[in-house]
Amino acid sequence: MRLMQPFAAQLQFHSGLIEPYGEKTVRRLSDMRGMYQDIAAMEELIKQGDPLLYEVYEVDVPHEEGQLIYCTSIIYPGKVGDEYYMTKGHFHSKESTAEMYFSLQGRGYLLMQTHDGQVSALEMVPGTVAYIPPFWAHRTVNTGDEPFIFFGVYPGDAGHNYGTIEERGFAKLVVERNGKPVLVDNPRYHPHPTLPRKQERATPTLPSPASRGGNGGNNAQSPREISGYREG
Amino acid sequence: MRLMQPFAAQLQFHSGLIEPYGEKTVRRLSDMRGMYQDIAAMEELIKQGDPLLYEVYEVDVPHEEGQLIYCTSIIYPGKVGDEYYMTKGHFHSKESTAEMYFSLQGRGYLLMQTHDGQVSALEMVPGTVAYIPPFWAHRTVNTGDEPFIFFGVYPGDAGHNYGTIEERGFAKLVVERNGKPVLVDNPRYHPHPTLPRKQERATPTLPSPASRGGNGGNNAQSPREISGYREG
Repeated sequence: MRLMQPFAAQLQFHSGLIEPYGEKTVRRLSDMRGMYQDIAAMEELIKQGDPLLYEVYEVDVPHEEGQLIYCTSIIYPGKVGDEYYMTKGHFHSKESTAEMYFSLQGRGYLLMQTHDGQVSALEMVPGTVAYIPPFWAHRTVNTGDEPFIFFGVYPGDAGHNYGTIEERGFAKLVVERNGKPVLVDNPRYHPHPTLPRKQERATPTLPSPASRGGNGGNNAQSPREISGYREG
Repeated sequence: MRLMQPFAAQLQFHSGLIEPYGEKTVRRLSDMRGMYQDIAAMEELIKQGDPLLYEVYEVDVPHEEGQLIYCTSIIYPGKVGDEYYMTKGHFHSKESTAEMYFSLQGRGYLLMQTHDGQVSALEMVPGTVAYIPPFWAHRTVNTGDEPFIFFGVYPGDAGHNYGTIEERGFAKLVVERNGKPVLVDNPRYHPHPTLPRKQERATPTLPSPASRGGNGGNNAQSPREISGYREG
């Protein structure tokens, strides 16, 4: 085995710039087709210039067991219809691996869900260190009016599975209501096939920073609140 | 397997305080007997009140494969003789696991070494993200005049082996010379028994932030520079 040499990168807290970095991922709205509810608004925005939604700067570390991959993510502010700009979201290919997000700038939400239908949402403000335990899919959402920037760390052998989310979606959406972010059911969510389709689940409220867990189950929103999101 | 729930902690960049935290480790100078060269200076400081050298606040995550343990470390400023306050330093019990340090406040050095005699030193200033690859023992040193605070992440199954460093020491010391930190050979270092004792190795210079690796091998310091460190 070849011994790897130690190294350092320098991160600017305010911009999220990390140097040197290896791979850079850029997602424009056209990379997110099928993920937003308001298809007409989405296609119009793509026609108008296909806005940049987010960038990920990953430091160059081997994707191997025992290593730690780390990156900064910058989600720009904006909405598609009433839905805030967000990441694609994914499970890890090796689902028994965790991930950690360290929030640097701006504000947003970390949305998580499991195959068996559990949902969690954590608010992220600068200094929030959010823990994504093994087996939770995760997506981040910028609910502010400046870039939402965070630093992420995950095990080198975690891998990314985007396919499950592309096929099934996220159970919850983060949308703007009266100028504020609200969590609503995703009417187009396809639960995991092992789950009964009509299962009723409480919608978690959007919690404050540093609260533990987000599956309160109180204040479930009524179906009326999401009816506008059946895209037509 | 019981599914773990997501949670968030809140970290203050300036103080290193992270809440909620689980285990807190406190090291006073008396916990570091045998690790400093100037034994007379050390015993005098212990007599005068046994100063607090560093604290580690660890967030409560299971120490299991696939999880990520994270903590903030606060090393206070000070010296024992000419040696700066530092951590004990350790290998991981599972040596094939990496660690990542994200520097928040103050300045210091990350000192690393392998069983086969390689040495590396990386300077850490706010924003430095230092990578400790698998198989490298690591120790941090506060070379500034304010608390040196960093955030660390390591795999849940890494574990700590302090014994090897307690027995053998670190190959290099970080000492003050004319008001500046300098890396010198540790005259009391016991190399790994598989290594020839008299092996000559270049001393790395103390590098600037964000430089890659620290084993330059240039500017090796002369034995005269370390002669004062043969403790008497």
